[in-house]
Amino acid sequence: MRLVVVAGSTRTAAIDGISAAGADADALRHTPSADLEILDYGEPVQSPVVPVSPTGCPTPAVVTRAVREHVGFDVTAIDAGLARPTAAPTVDIGDGPGADIRDVDPVPDAERLFERARSFAAGLPDDEIAVAESIPGGTTTALGVLTALGERPAVSSSLPENPLPRKRRVVDAALATSDLAPGGAAGEPVRAVRRVGDPVLAVVAGVVVGASEAGTTVRLAGGTQLAAAAALARHAGVDEPLSLETTSFVADDDSAAVHGLADDLGLTLRATDPGFTALDHPATNAYVAGEAKEGVGMGGALAMAARDDLPMATVRETVVDLVDDLLAARTAGERRQVP
Amino acid sequence: MRLVVVAGSTRTAAIDGISAAGADADALRHTPSADLEILDYGEPVQSPVVPVSPTGCPTPAVVTRAVREHVGFDVTAIDAGLARPTAAPTVDIGDGPGADIRDVDPVPDAERLFERARSFAAGLPDDEIAVAESIPGGTTTALGVLTALGERPAVSSSLPENPLPRKRRVVDAALATSDLAPGGAAGEPVRAVRRVGDPVLAVVAGVVVGASEAGTTVRLAGGTQLAAAAALARHAGVDEPLSLETTSFVADDDSAAVHGLADDLGLTLRATDPGFTALDHPATNAYVAGEAKEGVGMGGALAMAARDDLPMATVRETVVDLVDDLLAARTAGERRQVP
Repeated sequence: MRLVVVAGSTRTAAIDGISAAGADADALRHTPSADLEILDYGEPVQSPVVPVSPTGCPTPAVVTRAVREHVGFDVTAIDAGLARPTAAPTVDIGDGPGADIRDVDPVPDAERLFERARSFAAGLPDDEIAVAESIPGGTTTALGVLTALGERPAVSSSLPENPLPRKRRVVDAALATSDLAPGGAAGEPVRAVRRVGDPVLAVVAGVVVGASEAGTTVRLAGGTQLAAAAALARHAGVDEPLSLETTSFVADDDSAAVHGLADDLGLTLRATDPGFTALDHPATNAYVAGEAKEGVGMGGALAMAARDDLPMATVRETVVDLVDDLLAARTAGERRQVP
Repeated sequence: MRLVVVAGSTRTAAIDGISAAGADADALRHTPSADLEILDYGEPVQSPVVPVSPTGCPTPAVVTRAVREHVGFDVTAIDAGLARPTAAPTVDIGDGPGADIRDVDPVPDAERLFERARSFAAGLPDDEIAVAESIPGGTTTALGVLTALGERPAVSSSLPENPLPRKRRVVDAALATSDLAPGGAAGEPVRAVRRVGDPVLAVVAGVVVGASEAGTTVRLAGGTQLAAAAALARHAGVDEPLSLETTSFVADDDSAAVHGLADDLGLTLRATDPGFTALDHPATNAYVAGEAKEGVGMGGALAMAARDDLPMATVRETVVDLVDDLLAARTAGERRQVP
């Protein structure tokens, strides 16, 4: 199995109270770059930050990495507009961060990103791929896209209390700037992602469309952001079966309505529970308390673990080992210079 | 084990009769990009060429890939100046192809390439890495560097008849342009690689130095080009043990003097024989006849296979399967558009 992880950034994430995907505003800009390093090397290699939330909840990349250490799936990282350098190998499709969706034309090259990703995915030799994202602020842009397409406007959050009213105000302002009504971009996925989305959504949608057209089975490894990418693919005419593999934390989040979204979009939903309640560790307790919930392919990786009969207890032990190593390195300030 | 593959290009390869790493002059410019795709995906994914010599001998990347399909080592590809796009994920350190070494200053950014690679390698979490190259024309630039450093001026060739006199004339012209005598850059590795080398050698040398300084065990996966990189590292002051893992084809090439080079540089030499005489297939027969010989980590991958007790018969079967698939795709013209 190949996991295609699309990483990038949107300045929408800088809006106060939108994202918990970084300890502070500066660290947040490094999160996707550090996530890719964790997936590839097991730790941040050149990135100066360890991606944690303001309360210290570690990035879901550690869960995906933990599964990878046992299952050994391939990772193909796509740079769809990283804000900071990464030492992880990437396929470069993006041209830098997306703008705040309340600005005019936040993803001006959406068409090109979508088409390049579509062409890239159509060329992959795999029978089956999983697709994931890493982009702080991505649930807000996902809400923008779902609203513009006229789909169910409900998304999850990396915060325990989903700031949905705040996200809706951002999306309302974004739609107004772009002179779009809810549903105004139905059937026009590139327009939706260009006006109220982010570059990662444009690339993920392109990957889903290109792979589906080439006959590759696509697993959407994530939560409501991947559902928004699926919505873009449906509005681009993809009617192949698609599955959405997420975590129990997203599935249990009533504010996110992922079941309804999956039904609306004809997605087979699979939610996998890593059983974090069996532990008492600050990292896993943070997930149990509703932080992070999903990202960087976590739900898809847990589904791979389940399919491979990898015990969740083994996944949990590896997660705890990885987190302890990460936080020890963070405390020791062992981060090295960006090349 | 992580295999770091440094890929790039030098216009030196365009000199008539220097390199067999491509079916023709245009195809040759795509070879490193296609090699990386073969390592990562098992076939060229976006590259429009299948890398073969003018007589049809397939790239050694298929041998490395064949071992990888069984042993499952990680690959980290570094773009040290590719001439053409690749769909393989890369860490981008280079700034484009090196110039013909007979020109003034063929690798003007050698210092920066070396330092960035050194910093990158110092940050790798691995206890042990293997380092490899993909650059057509690379034995000629290796000869330039060995000569400038005052080391034994003998290198291998991707051609059955090593055009050493031709390479020496190119190197003589290059040294004259840079006003360097043989041995004139001893102890000045960056000067040697900048004046008569290529960007891949600058990056490989930086990786060897950075990894060695960080206490990482380094295996040089290749032939005389990797020996030239080791010479650069030795002249940069590295005195840690280094091993050179190459193929029996390079070890048996008397024109290349790899044994003498290894002795001079204090490298533990390991030559692995894939046993291609046991087959009668056009691809493996070409290697038996002295074509290609090494590259893209072939010798290092064969050594990994031997250490893992992977039978060479299994490696050979997979090589033949991969080559048959590649050539079938080539015949069918199934190549897709570069993104």
